[in-house]
Amino acid sequence: MFENYTELMNAVVDKYLSPENGEIYELQSAMHYSASAGGKRIRPAVMLEFGRICGATAEEVLPFALALEMIHTYSLIHDDLPCMDDDDMRRGKPSCHVAFGESTALLAGDALLTDAFKIAMETSVEDKQRVVAACRKLAECAGSRGMIGGQVIDLKYENKPATLDIIKKIHLLKTSQLLVAAATIGCILGGADESCVSAAQTFAENLGLAFQIKDDILDVTSTAEVLGKPIGSDAESNKSTYVSLVGLKQAENDVLTYTQTAISALDCFGDDAEDLKEFAKKLVYRTF
Amino acid sequence: MFENYTELMNAVVDKYLSPENGEIYELQSAMHYSASAGGKRIRPAVMLEFGRICGATAEEVLPFALALEMIHTYSLIHDDLPCMDDDDMRRGKPSCHVAFGESTALLAGDALLTDAFKIAMETSVEDKQRVVAACRKLAECAGSRGMIGGQVIDLKYENKPATLDIIKKIHLLKTSQLLVAAATIGCILGGADESCVSAAQTFAENLGLAFQIKDDILDVTSTAEVLGKPIGSDAESNKSTYVSLVGLKQAENDVLTYTQTAISALDCFGDDAEDLKEFAKKLVYRTF
Repeated sequence: MFENYTELMNAVVDKYLSPENGEIYELQSAMHYSASAGGKRIRPAVMLEFGRICGATAEEVLPFALALEMIHTYSLIHDDLPCMDDDDMRRGKPSCHVAFGESTALLAGDALLTDAFKIAMETSVEDKQRVVAACRKLAECAGSRGMIGGQVIDLKYENKPATLDIIKKIHLLKTSQLLVAAATIGCILGGADESCVSAAQTFAENLGLAFQIKDDILDVTSTAEVLGKPIGSDAESNKSTYVSLVGLKQAENDVLTYTQTAISALDCFGDDAEDLKEFAKKLVYRTF
Repeated sequence: MFENYTELMNAVVDKYLSPENGEIYELQSAMHYSASAGGKRIRPAVMLEFGRICGATAEEVLPFALALEMIHTYSLIHDDLPCMDDDDMRRGKPSCHVAFGESTALLAGDALLTDAFKIAMETSVEDKQRVVAACRKLAECAGSRGMIGGQVIDLKYENKPATLDIIKKIHLLKTSQLLVAAATIGCILGGADESCVSAAQTFAENLGLAFQIKDDILDVTSTAEVLGKPIGSDAESNKSTYVSLVGLKQAENDVLTYTQTAISALDCFGDDAEDLKEFAKKLVYRTF
């Protein structure tokens, strides 16, 4: 099922974002380049699956799923810019500003973020109250008190020690918030009640934490070839990480704990959530 | 009336965007700094007035009016960045990246753009079909086929000659599109019919053209003290402008023609549109 979501999303990305001849061909090429750079499509998959469980069709959810993936993509483009992390490579390919130049990359990011909201509004969900609530959630999770806030705090502690609370807050905002958008919007579009939306939020927050701590662990224990990116980059820059603060063993324990909390939150969805549980386990028990 | 809109918007900007103590204080300060830098609040005023004419209350329109102003503000912040126009000054004050640093300015722009959609969704308009249509219009006008597209084409012809058609296209996208959002969203939120929305669109497209050509004229004929920014900057960079292509006299004639077309489009709104007509005239007959 989740493999099908990946294929589905790749097709949708090509359908909506393939460049067309004209004056903005270069901009569209940059948008499509980054959006089709081989991401795992985790967030769209989570949204589609919560939608399915709560009674929204894939067709109804897809515009929001694409919007979320576009927002995730824009955030990577802007993160890689010279004035931010200054990363030349992303997923084994030159980053957007290396391939297309800095001004085009900046504008491609802006355009992915803006167009995302236009595409989301094209959902065929009849009850527009749900659409408005989903849109609000999307902007909230991606905005100054969500993902961007996490990025700001992350930059602030780039070269100075942070406490475990700060590190958790960064992960909760920078990583978990787009997963929260995925999980809750799937529920909202399907018309789920408040308690289910809230359970989906708990699932996503904890899964995001587990996922990010696992990332920190792999940064220490894996190899550059397996990860497809430089390892040990955090230690080099003197940056506090979850692992540097609690140690490898405790970090691995905490991955298990957060994953368990995430999975338990799914109980209110009954047997329907079995695939989601499997997916969560695979995500955090990965070796790359 | 239009003066009241400016005061109203300044108060709303302060209410929603004043920074609060906490980890993202710096980001919020940058957002507020740029959003309260003394803009003329033209777009919110146009939206509020079209809303009033079509039967939406100021309270219903304000979230979208603020959203549009935030999007306008983010576009100025990103335009000023070193990788774009590299402007150190904006409205007589240091630009956002000069005052707060490049990464904070980039993220403040991203946050203004994202939070705009959250705030827009807080409108109390009952008919959510209208809210969804307004949100879609906002994203469309600001996105890759709207304002950002105009920015892309503008950059493309930064240092090479452009035709009059290209220059008009740049103005129609880069300047007119946010005015189109202002005018049409006011109508949409008030429940206006298709023909009124379309008339509002014609008004805004032509007013934007007139406004921008007037800007090009003032760049040649005014003084730096009066404008509060360097003059002759376009001629210096060898950039084609409306004035350089058709001459000063023809440009001044065209301002009148486009303004007249804009004003005539308002006929379908009857006497209610008198203030809008006055406003349009003041905007293009200004000397600074």
